[in-house]
Amino acid sequence: MLRHLSQWIEDYHLQHLFKQGSFGIEKEGLRTTFFGDLALSDHPKTLGSRAHHPYLQTDFSESQPELVTPACDSLAHAFNWLYALHDVLNQSMSEDEFLWPFSMPNRLPEEQDIPIIRVEDQSAIDYRKRLAETYGKKLQMISGIHYNFSLTDDFIQALHKVSGTADDYITFNNELYIKLASNFLRYEWILTYLYGAAPYAESDFYQREKGDLPQPENYLRSLRKSEYGYHNDNEVVVRLDSVATYVNDLEHFVDEGILSEEREFYGNARLRGKGKHVRQMLSSGVEYIEFRSFDLNPYAEVGISEGQAAFIHLFLMTMLWLEEKATTEDIQLGQKRNIAVANENPLAPTAFIAEGQRILEVMAEVATSISAEDIYQRELTWAQEAFLNPQKTIAAQIVNDLKDTNFIDLGCRLGQIYKKRATETPYRLRGFADFELSTQLLIFDALQLGVEVEVLDASDQFIQLSFADHIEYVRNGNMTSHDTTISHFIMENKIVTKHILEQAGYRVPKGFHFSSIQEASEAYLYLQGKPVVIKPKSTNYGWGISILKENFTQKAYEEALAIAFSYDDQVLVEEYIAGSEYRFFVLNGKTEAVLKRIPAHVIGDGQQTIGELIDQKNEDPLRGDHHQTPLGRLGKGSEEKLMLAEQGLDFDSVVEAGQVVYLRENSNISTGGDSVDMTDTMHESYQRIAEGICQALGVNVSGVDLIVPDYTAVATSDNYSCLEANFNPAMNMHAFVTKGKGRRLTRQILAMLFPEAMSDQYWQDRQ
Amino acid sequence: MLRHLSQWIEDYHLQHLFKQGSFGIEKEGLRTTFFGDLALSDHPKTLGSRAHHPYLQTDFSESQPELVTPACDSLAHAFNWLYALHDVLNQSMSEDEFLWPFSMPNRLPEEQDIPIIRVEDQSAIDYRKRLAETYGKKLQMISGIHYNFSLTDDFIQALHKVSGTADDYITFNNELYIKLASNFLRYEWILTYLYGAAPYAESDFYQREKGDLPQPENYLRSLRKSEYGYHNDNEVVVRLDSVATYVNDLEHFVDEGILSEEREFYGNARLRGKGKHVRQMLSSGVEYIEFRSFDLNPYAEVGISEGQAAFIHLFLMTMLWLEEKATTEDIQLGQKRNIAVANENPLAPTAFIAEGQRILEVMAEVATSISAEDIYQRELTWAQEAFLNPQKTIAAQIVNDLKDTNFIDLGCRLGQIYKKRATETPYRLRGFADFELSTQLLIFDALQLGVEVEVLDASDQFIQLSFADHIEYVRNGNMTSHDTTISHFIMENKIVTKHILEQAGYRVPKGFHFSSIQEASEAYLYLQGKPVVIKPKSTNYGWGISILKENFTQKAYEEALAIAFSYDDQVLVEEYIAGSEYRFFVLNGKTEAVLKRIPAHVIGDGQQTIGELIDQKNEDPLRGDHHQTPLGRLGKGSEEKLMLAEQGLDFDSVVEAGQVVYLRENSNISTGGDSVDMTDTMHESYQRIAEGICQALGVNVSGVDLIVPDYTAVATSDNYSCLEANFNPAMNMHAFVTKGKGRRLTRQILAMLFPEAMSDQYWQDRQ
Repeated sequence: MLRHLSQWIEDYHLQHLFKQGSFGIEKEGLRTTFFGDLALSDHPKTLGSRAHHPYLQTDFSESQPELVTPACDSLAHAFNWLYALHDVLNQSMSEDEFLWPFSMPNRLPEEQDIPIIRVEDQSAIDYRKRLAETYGKKLQMISGIHYNFSLTDDFIQALHKVSGTADDYITFNNELYIKLASNFLRYEWILTYLYGAAPYAESDFYQREKGDLPQPENYLRSLRKSEYGYHNDNEVVVRLDSVATYVNDLEHFVDEGILSEEREFYGNARLRGKGKHVRQMLSSGVEYIEFRSFDLNPYAEVGISEGQAAFIHLFLMTMLWLEEKATTEDIQLGQKRNIAVANENPLAPTAFIAEGQRILEVMAEVATSISAEDIYQRELTWAQEAFLNPQKTIAAQIVNDLKDTNFIDLGCRLGQIYKKRATETPYRLRGFADFELSTQLLIFDALQLGVEVEVLDASDQFIQLSFADHIEYVRNGNMTSHDTTISHFIMENKIVTKHILEQAGYRVPKGFHFSSIQEASEAYLYLQGKPVVIKPKSTNYGWGISILKENFTQKAYEEALAIAFSYDDQVLVEEYIAGSEYRFFVLNGKTEAVLKRIPAHVIGDGQQTIGELIDQKNEDPLRGDHHQTPLGRLGKGSEEKLMLAEQGLDFDSVVEAGQVVYLRENSNISTGGDSVDMTDTMHESYQRIAEGICQALGVNVSGVDLIVPDYTAVATSDNYSCLEANFNPAMNMHAFVTKGKGRRLTRQILAMLFPEAMSDQYWQDRQ
Repeated sequence: MLRHLSQWIEDYHLQHLFKQGSFGIEKEGLRTTFFGDLALSDHPKTLGSRAHHPYLQTDFSESQPELVTPACDSLAHAFNWLYALHDVLNQSMSEDEFLWPFSMPNRLPEEQDIPIIRVEDQSAIDYRKRLAETYGKKLQMISGIHYNFSLTDDFIQALHKVSGTADDYITFNNELYIKLASNFLRYEWILTYLYGAAPYAESDFYQREKGDLPQPENYLRSLRKSEYGYHNDNEVVVRLDSVATYVNDLEHFVDEGILSEEREFYGNARLRGKGKHVRQMLSSGVEYIEFRSFDLNPYAEVGISEGQAAFIHLFLMTMLWLEEKATTEDIQLGQKRNIAVANENPLAPTAFIAEGQRILEVMAEVATSISAEDIYQRELTWAQEAFLNPQKTIAAQIVNDLKDTNFIDLGCRLGQIYKKRATETPYRLRGFADFELSTQLLIFDALQLGVEVEVLDASDQFIQLSFADHIEYVRNGNMTSHDTTISHFIMENKIVTKHILEQAGYRVPKGFHFSSIQEASEAYLYLQGKPVVIKPKSTNYGWGISILKENFTQKAYEEALAIAFSYDDQVLVEEYIAGSEYRFFVLNGKTEAVLKRIPAHVIGDGQQTIGELIDQKNEDPLRGDHHQTPLGRLGKGSEEKLMLAEQGLDFDSVVEAGQVVYLRENSNISTGGDSVDMTDTMHESYQRIAEGICQALGVNVSGVDLIVPDYTAVATSDNYSCLEANFNPAMNMHAFVTKGKGRRLTRQILAMLFPEAMSDQYWQDRQ
């Protein structure tokens, strides 16, 4: 009946629904020392507990991390996750280790020295011990990619409706997935031809059992998918006539003791449903299929390229689109071809080129019908070429590369490049670039700890975090259920903030607020004479703020008012208090970080011009534009020019060694300011002040800005002033500082939200 | 030394600071039956406990409420308070009672039947019993106004600095207030001349002791301020040479038993400081002066007009401005003149006209120097005229009015007009018109209960509430410390809200969200066929929302998208679910009100045109424009015209009796919709749904909008749909409804914030 599927899709305009789906990728890989040996160290301690970690697990071996993305509504999202998890894993690993980029292992120790996972769950260890006995430890070290795919319910429901079938929804759903799995196994060899990537293993890998293989003269497309790979016994044949035969066959092999558990079935297309046992799929339906075919692609940083993933998706859609459904015999034929292709010489054409080209033609037809995105079309074109020219296949590329170097060196070179990419911008989390840096850090920490992350609305910086049944929602990385609505609006409103702080006995700049330019202008007479700050009632980033020195003119005053009123219809004119400004990041009643921000400046060396010194300072990789890095670049715009002119300088001036030349009045990091961590040097009495301020405002997470003339002196009621408390304090600028120790505040946010997820060690360190 | 004060102000441009000040008004008045008798009922029970009520107290008698404004930074604010307190008091009193507008009492019962306050504090009762013995109860029933005034610290500090004095700040401060009090007493008679307003008392008022007085032929300017008034013994002379003599003299009379307590001193200018005892002023300084001179002005609704208050302020500034400081002898002369003027015939000129005019000239000089506002200038002009023409004085106006009527009738007429004004718009609180109606109701309830209110930022709907040491901040009447920051942002974001509700198992409209018009347009093919709602991701008031009927055209779809995208860069297209929309107001886990909003409509009567029916419906005083009333006016604009045209009607059509004609698609109250309270009729299962939704969102105060096709049917998982949860749900629309019972939600908000302020009775009623 499902032979009409392509016709239904076209007649009922279901293409948009058809090309949607849910995608999850699981990737194994070996931790490797910089010399290419298997790393025998423990799985990184910072990665929380493997008892519950949803993303970063270990497979067979303690040295074999497994990265598991959640089910994503697009391949692009799945890749975001895959990159992010690689960042987290790599940054959690020792600096001396990287992930091996090949499916075939790095330089392994003796069989007995290969470490099985070290966890507390004895049953997990016992299961792996049985596998080691059945298959040998070395074979278990071959790593790969699993590609989990499901269609959307919307699509299946629409198809069910237009099919006019009398079958119920679950039956229809299951038939659909049976067709997909069957046809996949029939034509799987095409993917092996294109993406097989295990032509070679180290000479001692098969030594003990098959010492004669592989030798350079007989490379294969994929050792892993050949008979040298890692498969169930040949007698384990699980039929795909229906979900019922699949379930019965699988249960039979477990009952007979041929498989120790259902999960020991290594079929290349495993049907997955709700619950622990396959039988449940009969009542609640197949939920997705786990395709286990894929060798690690060493040329893709995350083991699989996005084009390849798109091609596989198109291939899966094509398996549904085909009129026929493979029978058990068809599947056996397909699997035989798959092994045959795996055994072919990578540089030679495949024996089944005609069948491959036929399927690629159907894929092209599907791509046209669904208006597939460019990435699908590009990869399809490459595949068509690769069928004509085997040199283009992944296996052939590896073979060619091995002509100039050896396997271990190639793996080390590629793996180390990928390690560098995953660790060189620790202030960013690849895959989550839509988020501000603070949220990227928070997501990093959550992934590291094993707290589940769900993006609710990236444009609004909204995420969901969960740990077991405990759910928390977070916006901007710091707005949580631990603060009150009203405290947010108190901090947003400077008039209200000042009122509350004054009432609670804290020192705030004295001042006036005005609702009109005229009213404010009239006050010139009694304001003039002392330095003042003029600022809009509510803004961020220092916008619209002017500082006027004492005896300022009426003209300067009115210009400053006009600027401030352009940001808000209420404006504050406050006394200007001399002293340095410090940001106190207070969390749960405790000052967790103190930062001094120094206006953008350069220090003369008696040789270079100011312009050159600026360029030099901007070379720091922590500096960038548009809040994409922890520090901003120093500018050479009109403001800097003016500031230099006031000092009798310009960009071509050369000043003597050690002379500090300021380029800005404001100390914002985003305009090139420096950040200096002062957490341990600031007199602690000011930390108590900042904490008291947060208590008065009733806020748990805030960035309090204090002016302190002398940070070594004990705080009195009069030797500081509170400028404001920020409801959305940046956290990244504390983590990556120009000078001093970085403070990982996002981890404190997690500890506040999920104390139960923190290890005992964490809490001990906090004492 | 302070003789140079005017010169310092002018030389150092201190005028702006000089005219600032702090103002508080206390007003007593008698509760009166509609026949002019003293009301013998209890003080209103709804006014919380007099043990702590900061605003609404009783003076001597249970029937003598006292309204006390807080110290305000302007007279305008003090009057806002005075109007608001009159609204609260009048609406709390029985409908049959009003406030007597004269200082001289209404028709009193026999001496023994005049009720002393009925409170639990026995010492307060005993004190009044002693007063009754000393002065007689009747005299205690004479009511008046106290006017509390202080200069700002900023002014006194500036003056202290420019004076070059060697005195410390407290000494300087006290001298300033001594000068103010002394000169006030010297020239007080001027205010008595202008504003004396007690020319007459009921014939039996003085009957027993002074039966011959007053008779119509010998009206006075002010009985209250004459020797017939209510004064300390003549021997109680408290000198104002310095704060020290003031304190010593006062303590002396208490020690001698001539005064029972310090507070029994009825001087017309009482110095007030911190703490309970006057002695403390020696160390901490005079804080303000209580001027006790003022008769109730019956022509001012609140007992004193704003012009009069401005004049008094100008008079007080003038008392400081004068070179001389009155000596004890001067003061005695002044007080003698004051009594003499009080005894003058209201229609005759005063004997001291030359002195009065001299002071008015100085007042004009002060007014010019400080650029006094118009209201000051106008009242000053009136006073100058009133010195030439006694007919213009308040006392003379009363005497003239009494020619046509009698005292009791005049008092009843004026008092009842004021009662009406204070009660006719119960959805508004006069004096707080800057606030939205919901906050006005909340402030009303707080004032009634005795919870202190401080306006922090009216433009931002920000207030502070406090009860004893417990402070709460509230924005928009419903954003408090009882909700979390994140719940606010969850509700603000419809995508996130839907995600959470779906996850928690609640029914929300199925739909899609789009980030660009193009992406949304492409979805036409698979969306078309079912009715849909198109709306911006985050807005309020129904802006930008379109509903498209099934089989909508691509053109209509794209127009609706363009509208929605003009409000937000993300747009939702959701299934449209038929059924009525209900607002569930949930507070602290309990549905406190359910409201059905019906689109603007009229019901035909077979006679009037639709236009006439609209006009008739708009006569309802609850209907108004711009959210200034609980219900909006029905419009006659293009939208209504279009809607009528679709029904083959126009504004001139006459439809048969009973026919409902809708004028709008949307059910918003602001566009003329009706509101029907359904709290007791809605099947309670939907209330549980709304409560569960709030629990899922983690919110304590929210307005949940549910579509319910049949409100009598029990809720299932499928027969309702949640449209949204509002983070700023209007409360006023539940309080004043077109049909059904109003629900006073603001009182529930108070109960949530201040459970300790609620009486046991309140909690019993809630069971």
